[in-house]
Amino acid sequence: MITHISPVGAMTLLSQLEVERLKATAASDLYRLYRNCSLAVLNSGSHSDDSSALLERHKSFDINVLRRERGIKLELKDPPEHAFVDGKIIRGIQEHLFAVMRDIIYVNVHVQQRNDLNLTSAPHITNFIFSILRNAQTVRSREDPNIIVCWGGHSINPEEYQYTRDVGHQLGLRELNICTGCGPGAMEGPMKGAAIGHAQQRYGKSRFIGLTEPSIIAAEPPNPIVNELVIMPDIEKRLEAFVRVGHGIVIFPGGAGTAEELLYIIGILMHPDNQDQPLPVVLTGPKSSEPYFRTLDSFIRDTLGEAATKRYQIIIDDPAKVARIMKAAMPQTKEHRQETGDAYCYNWSLKIPPEFQLPFEPTHDAMGGLDLHFNQPPEQLAANLRRAFSGIVAGNVKEEGIREIERKGPFLMNGDPSLMKRMDKLLKNFVSQQRMKLPGSEYVPCYRILTHPDMVK
Amino acid sequence: MITHISPVGAMTLLSQLEVERLKATAASDLYRLYRNCSLAVLNSGSHSDDSSALLERHKSFDINVLRRERGIKLELKDPPEHAFVDGKIIRGIQEHLFAVMRDIIYVNVHVQQRNDLNLTSAPHITNFIFSILRNAQTVRSREDPNIIVCWGGHSINPEEYQYTRDVGHQLGLRELNICTGCGPGAMEGPMKGAAIGHAQQRYGKSRFIGLTEPSIIAAEPPNPIVNELVIMPDIEKRLEAFVRVGHGIVIFPGGAGTAEELLYIIGILMHPDNQDQPLPVVLTGPKSSEPYFRTLDSFIRDTLGEAATKRYQIIIDDPAKVARIMKAAMPQTKEHRQETGDAYCYNWSLKIPPEFQLPFEPTHDAMGGLDLHFNQPPEQLAANLRRAFSGIVAGNVKEEGIREIERKGPFLMNGDPSLMKRMDKLLKNFVSQQRMKLPGSEYVPCYRILTHPDMVK
Amino acid sequence: MITHISPVGAMTLLSQLEVERLKATAASDLYRLYRNCSLAVLNSGSHSDDSSALLERHKSFDINVLRRERGIKLELKDPPEHAFVDGKIIRGIQEHLFAVMRDIIYVNVHVQQRNDLNLTSAPHITNFIFSILRNAQTVRSREDPNIIVCWGGHSINPEEYQYTRDVGHQLGLRELNICTGCGPGAMEGPMKGAAIGHAQQRYGKSRFIGLTEPSIIAAEPPNPIVNELVIMPDIEKRLEAFVRVGHGIVIFPGGAGTAEELLYIIGILMHPDNQDQPLPVVLTGPKSSEPYFRTLDSFIRDTLGEAATKRYQIIIDDPAKVARIMKAAMPQTKEHRQETGDAYCYNWSLKIPPEFQLPFEPTHDAMGGLDLHFNQPPEQLAANLRRAFSGIVAGNVKEEGIREIERKGPFLMNGDPSLMKRMDKLLKNFVSQQRMKLPGSEYVPCYRILTHPDMVK
Amino acid sequence: MITHISPVGAMTLLSQLEVERLKATAASDLYRLYRNCSLAVLNSGSHSDDSSALLERHKSFDINVLRRERGIKLELKDPPEHAFVDGKIIRGIQEHLFAVMRDIIYVNVHVQQRNDLNLTSAPHITNFIFSILRNAQTVRSREDPNIIVCWGGHSINPEEYQYTRDVGHQLGLRELNICTGCGPGAMEGPMKGAAIGHAQQRYGKSRFIGLTEPSIIAAEPPNPIVNELVIMPDIEKRLEAFVRVGHGIVIFPGGAGTAEELLYIIGILMHPDNQDQPLPVVLTGPKSSEPYFRTLDSFIRDTLGEAATKRYQIIIDDPAKVARIMKAAMPQTKEHRQETGDAYCYNWSLKIPPEFQLPFEPTHDAMGGLDLHFNQPPEQLAANLRRAFSGIVAGNVKEEGIREIERKGPFLMNGDPSLMKRMDKLLKNFVSQQRMKLPGSEYVPCYRILTHPDMVK
Repeated sequence: MITHISPVGAMTLLSQLEVERLKATAASDLYRLYRNCSLAVLNSGSHSDDSSALLERHKSFDINVLRRERGIKLELKDPPEHAFVDGKIIRGIQEHLFAVMRDIIYVNVHVQQRNDLNLTSAPHITNFIFSILRNAQTVRSREDPNIIVCWGGHSINPEEYQYTRDVGHQLGLRELNICTGCGPGAMEGPMKGAAIGHAQQRYGKSRFIGLTEPSIIAAEPPNPIVNELVIMPDIEKRLEAFVRVGHGIVIFPGGAGTAEELLYIIGILMHPDNQDQPLPVVLTGPKSSEPYFRTLDSFIRDTLGEAATKRYQIIIDDPAKVARIMKAAMPQTKEHRQETGDAYCYNWSLKIPPEFQLPFEPTHDAMGGLDLHFNQPPEQLAANLRRAFSGIVAGNVKEEGIREIERKGPFLMNGDPSLMKRMDKLLKNFVSQQRMKLPGSEYVPCYRILTHPDMVK
Repeated sequence: MITHISPVGAMTLLSQLEVERLKATAASDLYRLYRNCSLAVLNSGSHSDDSSALLERHKSFDINVLRRERGIKLELKDPPEHAFVDGKIIRGIQEHLFAVMRDIIYVNVHVQQRNDLNLTSAPHITNFIFSILRNAQTVRSREDPNIIVCWGGHSINPEEYQYTRDVGHQLGLRELNICTGCGPGAMEGPMKGAAIGHAQQRYGKSRFIGLTEPSIIAAEPPNPIVNELVIMPDIEKRLEAFVRVGHGIVIFPGGAGTAEELLYIIGILMHPDNQDQPLPVVLTGPKSSEPYFRTLDSFIRDTLGEAATKRYQIIIDDPAKVARIMKAAMPQTKEHRQETGDAYCYNWSLKIPPEFQLPFEPTHDAMGGLDLHFNQPPEQLAANLRRAFSGIVAGNVKEEGIREIERKGPFLMNGDPSLMKRMDKLLKNFVSQQRMKLPGSEYVPCYRILTHPDMVK
Repeated sequence: MITHISPVGAMTLLSQLEVERLKATAASDLYRLYRNCSLAVLNSGSHSDDSSALLERHKSFDINVLRRERGIKLELKDPPEHAFVDGKIIRGIQEHLFAVMRDIIYVNVHVQQRNDLNLTSAPHITNFIFSILRNAQTVRSREDPNIIVCWGGHSINPEEYQYTRDVGHQLGLRELNICTGCGPGAMEGPMKGAAIGHAQQRYGKSRFIGLTEPSIIAAEPPNPIVNELVIMPDIEKRLEAFVRVGHGIVIFPGGAGTAEELLYIIGILMHPDNQDQPLPVVLTGPKSSEPYFRTLDSFIRDTLGEAATKRYQIIIDDPAKVARIMKAAMPQTKEHRQETGDAYCYNWSLKIPPEFQLPFEPTHDAMGGLDLHFNQPPEQLAANLRRAFSGIVAGNVKEEGIREIERKGPFLMNGDPSLMKRMDKLLKNFVSQQRMKLPGSEYVPCYRILTHPDMVK
Repeated sequence: MITHISPVGAMTLLSQLEVERLKATAASDLYRLYRNCSLAVLNSGSHSDDSSALLERHKSFDINVLRRERGIKLELKDPPEHAFVDGKIIRGIQEHLFAVMRDIIYVNVHVQQRNDLNLTSAPHITNFIFSILRNAQTVRSREDPNIIVCWGGHSINPEEYQYTRDVGHQLGLRELNICTGCGPGAMEGPMKGAAIGHAQQRYGKSRFIGLTEPSIIAAEPPNPIVNELVIMPDIEKRLEAFVRVGHGIVIFPGGAGTAEELLYIIGILMHPDNQDQPLPVVLTGPKSSEPYFRTLDSFIRDTLGEAATKRYQIIIDDPAKVARIMKAAMPQTKEHRQETGDAYCYNWSLKIPPEFQLPFEPTHDAMGGLDLHFNQPPEQLAANLRRAFSGIVAGNVKEEGIREIERKGPFLMNGDPSLMKRMDKLLKNFVSQQRMKLPGSEYVPCYRILTHPDMVK
């Protein structure tokens, strides 16, 4: 089946050279990246978090950019059916298709050709991320701080899901906007709740920002309610985008990805340069999630120390309170930015140490070589733990990671035995609570924690 | 507590004379009407359908119109707290306050002073309703047919409620708008679902129309998501507004009010003048509601005859199908209106016989005197049954009705014994399924069906 | 030739009863009024100020309201050609057609049927004017004071015309809006100038308000740049609308109408109740107009006394200064309205004494009977002089007036000889400077000033 | 005097690296370019076309980019006063300031760093121009063809100026948009006229596009009515932008620059690949300009041959006809673009031969070496004549050119004697009609035409 899709949003006109680049031969890497990300957004609403399976299922899918009198058109071959309502593409998904094109062209066609960009330099990375977000019009000068980043699992239970909606509703009633990592569960609920809250407040500037990356988008496709989709090049740039764009962070229950996010923000906020940053971090869930958060809290305390627990608070079963805390932080953020001359829309002054900023490639070697011992500064340990969980996410749902695990077996991780035990316990909890993958299949761990020194060969 | 509320919407400027009329003395009927309707919309979200209780609970509430340099302001004394979020009125409720003012001034100050209006003349009534809706900007010339009227109970179970949301979502995905009678349950769910569907489609012209009347608004206050609230003078004008404004009708499970609505639309559509009207009527609910609809269907068939059942269809557990039927009817409606030169936004040509159009005052005498026998044309019987259910709604939730029942005991209704039995059975079903009133209290029927001739004195 | 015109603006939907009223028979007064006003706005850009001639020229013109699926349509028979560009009606004129309909229906169909309105009561008149303007959405609550009323002749020389444009440009650069009486000359120039100023300032809320009346609209049809046209019932209500809606007044050179306006505003501002009103009045023109203003100033001083000259200032050849004065008055006006609780958009507190407010019918008897002697308070004299000039305008350009003069000869006016001489001189100046009528015809005065007591029989 | 200016338009956020580049040291070339262009737009409305004089007059002017919480701010030191009204910058000029920044950053910071761009390749140049226009949002996908390019002199007489306004008015009444080269005279009149026409038509999407270049902007600063200002890198890219963006071309009287533009469009349209291009070219002026156009027409005929005159028509004193021709061409253009799959907003398929596309640097050597003989194909000769006039414009008003002339005396041009004579005559006409420079100074030619072979050494 062939369908033609008209452009929406900013990306309606391409130069002839740009069209050439995207067309290229089907064998080119750029085309494959473009095709796969496009397929992923068309797959919105599918109930699968297995990237490989998705790609397998839609082998005949093809995408082609055509030039027309009103700009470009997309020609889709065999797109997933549920992107359409009565044969017409859902407008939100249509926008996402062109967001994919916009970001892929910007990063791969424009910026990659610049010879003045050095992506191992901290300021260059931070400027690069800014440029991607500005090109996507996600950083905006005229808006007051109002973006709440919501993190949490894609696989949560119905009670938790309803709770994320309730928090979203309370945030929405306070005219706050939502930013998540796309996908279902805790990444969708707050947006749906906020949409209702915004409607009740006649708030017409709803922003539902989804920040994703090519390697995760297939596993966690954006819900069409996301009205600003940005594809960051990798997880580290995506995490940096979250913390520079967001003005408050809410963490719902989740699995390895949520642990990665929590360790990332704690690790950064522990840096002395960031001690005056007014960024509120709240861990929250319904009454039944209390044990979950207590476990997580203990893990942090036991591994990174008491100080690490000072930068977040846990709120159980009180959506309005969560929203009030976030709302109350906005004027403080304004004031802080005014004082420091920093932009409301992009937290330039937040210090992100290199161990959090530079990309980590989760190969078996890299995972095996992670230094997971206590004899290092807590931020350093946080950075390494973050990498460990990042690798587990890759092994769980990213195409590349899944393939690596298939070929070489689980990642083996080792370190300080007591730390390993705690980590093992936490992960086992995630598994038993079905937080690692969507229910429906038996979860086979992509890692092995060597909890006893003897287990290390 | 005194709060000042700024105007929103169209009603920002009053003439000095209009302000005078609304101020008047607290003893005036117009002021009481105005105050009570205002209180009702402020009470949005309260979980009560007892008008008297509401008024009782907020005895100290007071409202006062002030003239200011930017138009008027409202001064509220002791308003219900849940209209506010962190001390700021919810914008949707704020709009409703001014919609109340707009309609009360229009009907009571402007139109009532006109000496060329005869409210017993059918064309005058129909023109009057049009004028109210036009003044509220609810009839609009530039829009294609897309308004789906959703009827159903304010007291429905969670599964039914979720189903109304799902139908709303499917309607919203097809860029259809929703019109209901305000209140919770089946009057709220479709709007919330459609809000999400509209967001996914980036549909920016969402219309969530609530048509209410002064005597019901306190029992079924509009959810703030209603973005067009119109207060019609009485239930008959409200019903006429529904059917002239709507382009399709969905009926969810409900109680006496839903039965009234169903009888109204069937009775009208049975009229020979209306046989070419393309208005689709769908009765729908989740699987578990199937018996409910079968019962209702039998009641119609047995009382009004097979022909009466031809103007609606029953669809079980298929929200997308309901939405597709409605969507498919829109081009037919367009075509029909073009051919007949009738307005898209107001169905002037729909014939409403006087027995459906003229107000029925449900006193004990009137209820007792209803002709509920088979020996009359089915439309006539439909009209009388409609009045019977209308009276029951009044006795259940309207202030005046409740007070009458308190004073004189239940309405006694009699008629053809077999008809009475069926009616009794239907109502008992409503009661046992908790459809008459919100759960939480024992329902005491406000009527007595004299099922045996001997019961009639 | 038959053309169909779609509705624009607010007046897109009429009830069946309203359509009936406008259709009526061609013989009805209401239809004639409606037809003639419609013809007048279609005649925009014609170079004639003779109402009778216009009506004569377009005898076959006919207008008919049709009901269609998207609201109403107008059917025009033989409309003037210059309302169209390449066969398509100019959008501004199209809007004016529907403004005519809106005001005629509002005043004649709606308000006239109200039995609670007494048009000899001052507050009722003021409320009535407010209602017309509110119905036309010309009074608006959300705007700061920024409306400058520009008065002046329809027949001015090119240098004066360019000057009115320059003043308009300077007002426009300061984001002020313009209100005039419609028509060419000093009523058009400021709007065109302001349009350029607004464009340079990207001011997107340009208001070019034209206030007219049925008896003058044919002689001075609105330029299509007028984007808010309101048809007031008579000259007195129109003058009241000007001074209640405007926040500053600029008077350019003109003839009898301009004299009427000047006397009106001076007469009102002399009232003790108005002494704190911050309304600036500036008389201005190019260098060559200086003698004109000196003459006018002397006339005021000599007839109404020195005090009368204190409420205006004369500025020669300095458009930027005029604009700065107006701009500077806006915050004062805001403050004054805030203090007095008066609306920014409608000066309720301005006192208009009955002799200025109640309609004056310029019959030969009434004109002959005007008390034009010095032995009365100056405000009283101002009111009578205002009436005298008003009658002359009627005799010059209004259909009714022209016909009266044709039948009975010129108005004879008498009074205090020295006053009569001054008045005669002023009018002779107007005549010799071609300010009474557009150039192209010999002006035959419609009045005779009996400057010597003996002339009065 | 120091003033701070807030950003408007798209350019509200800069990355830290971008700010660095613009700040740099005052000695950097980029800063000088940025400062001078900024000064030029601030100088709007000055009556001078001498770039050097302007720069001389405002030596103390300085501009500085500051980073603030809501994005950037500009700090201006000693800006020209007439950019301000009562101390507040004119919004149009404010927008131009940020358009300058946008284009300078885009071209010099972003694109110059790309290593995949080859500016001697025709497709690369055409793509580059497209990118600049897209970045400026001047190419837009959703608009139908409606852009009329108006060329003509900056120094024209009042009658001609009024005529350009009248043509603009007629174009505006037909809802066509205007694109010119910025500056006064024929580049301003059509926009002012169209602004009034648009206002009468309530046309809300007015586009007044000004295409300029760094070397001319100081001599011909944009009128603030220009609402899309784009700074192209050089005259050849600017000319290419005109013809790819415009859908019709109107040429008013002018001097050397106008001759350059006429030769450019004729030379291109004579190319066989362009014979089906539906681009209308109209030369027009008031009655008094007829001889001017006859002279120009003869010059073309005599130098380039009869065929060259087929691609334009001359219309004298008929603004409505000019506008009707342009309007009528729009559907043809649509159809042609649809058939060829070309964009409405950018004429990719127009063939521009390299002799018209590649930059010509008008040094004394280059000017002296121009091949101005008849023994070459007419397109080739048109290209060389275009270069000759281009050099004269540079010598007249561009900073670099003026300095060169000061240093080395006039350009000496030679060629076929009869051609030289015609050229000399044409230029003398321009001089005597005061078309070379604004009136007020004696014009000293920057060239010498060697009309006799002996004059060539």
